[in-house]
Amino acid sequence: MARWEPDAAGRLREAAMALYAERGYERTTVAEIADRAGVTARTFFRHFADKREVLFAGSEELERRMVEAVLAAPESAGPMDAVAAGVLASGEFFVDRREHSRRRQAVITATPELREREFIKMASLAAAFTDALRKRGVAPEIASLAAETGVAVFRVAFERWVADPQDADITDIMRATLADLSSLTA
Amino acid sequence: MARWEPDAAGRLREAAMALYAERGYERTTVAEIADRAGVTARTFFRHFADKREVLFAGSEELERRMVEAVLAAPESAGPMDAVAAGVLASGEFFVDRREHSRRRQAVITATPELREREFIKMASLAAAFTDALRKRGVAPEIASLAAETGVAVFRVAFERWVADPQDADITDIMRATLADLSSLTA
Repeated sequence: MARWEPDAAGRLREAAMALYAERGYERTTVAEIADRAGVTARTFFRHFADKREVLFAGSEELERRMVEAVLAAPESAGPMDAVAAGVLASGEFFVDRREHSRRRQAVITATPELREREFIKMASLAAAFTDALRKRGVAPEIASLAAETGVAVFRVAFERWVADPQDADITDIMRATLADLSSLTA
Repeated sequence: MARWEPDAAGRLREAAMALYAERGYERTTVAEIADRAGVTARTFFRHFADKREVLFAGSEELERRMVEAVLAAPESAGPMDAVAAGVLASGEFFVDRREHSRRRQAVITATPELREREFIKMASLAAAFTDALRKRGVAPEIASLAAETGVAVFRVAFERWVADPQDADITDIMRATLADLSSLTA
């Protein structure tokens, strides 16, 4: 008997995150996640392809927004400013997600399979930034350097944010990290 | 009957690279590599743990040299200059390896499993750079940013080098990439 589940996806995400923290990602099953969320496994699979997708479901959306911001940067913006616009565009995505992001990051750090998945995601983002910069007319070798550097800034800023004891705004941390990069390479 | 094999490792590397290019990495077996090199599978396993290690055997040595160069940079060197010393130290490792590197890169690009392994290697290098910078007294958040940026430069410069139609010196390409980074982030 199928019935409507108010915010089943949200409850599944909550349940998964709690179980991953309690017993580890590898030892958690889809059946247990569904059970904890009070839904059937079938409902789980209506929302997520597998237990890994609970953690990575938002990634494509995030990448899409970041790439759009690179493309939408003013024509006068240089390659690094366009990439910076892409990095800063992620800030909005993370609003009210700090606690979730922190728990998610802890699960990923503790699980080699998920760390690898995260590396692949970052490589995908770098490739997407490179494509976007080339569409803006940036030379290939400069495009990939700016893209890889932008991803480095994004990763470092994200880690600073989840670890920040003051709960600082992620966009402020990203701006500070971009400024640190300028000082470092001056 | 064990017997001494003059440069068996070198012949195995050559044979493996040829087979990976001909039929793809996944469809090549250790038995075929050994056969092509004119040695037994037992000899293969005296030199390499598995067929993947034929491609990645030099990685630890490379990382070790790069990290040593970061640690050996003059005390007066800032974080990015120390990382640049590490990146430039890889140049010597690649002398006379351009053709090998180019073929290796083609195999890795064509094989998702190997691409993932390469991402992990780069993450390991970034972590090792971060540790080395912290040993030099660099603040944690600056250390990881300089380290990740250095790895981005290394990756981009390496790709430029294997693709370069003029067969330019890898150290020159690395210096040019570091200069590009300064211009980009100025």
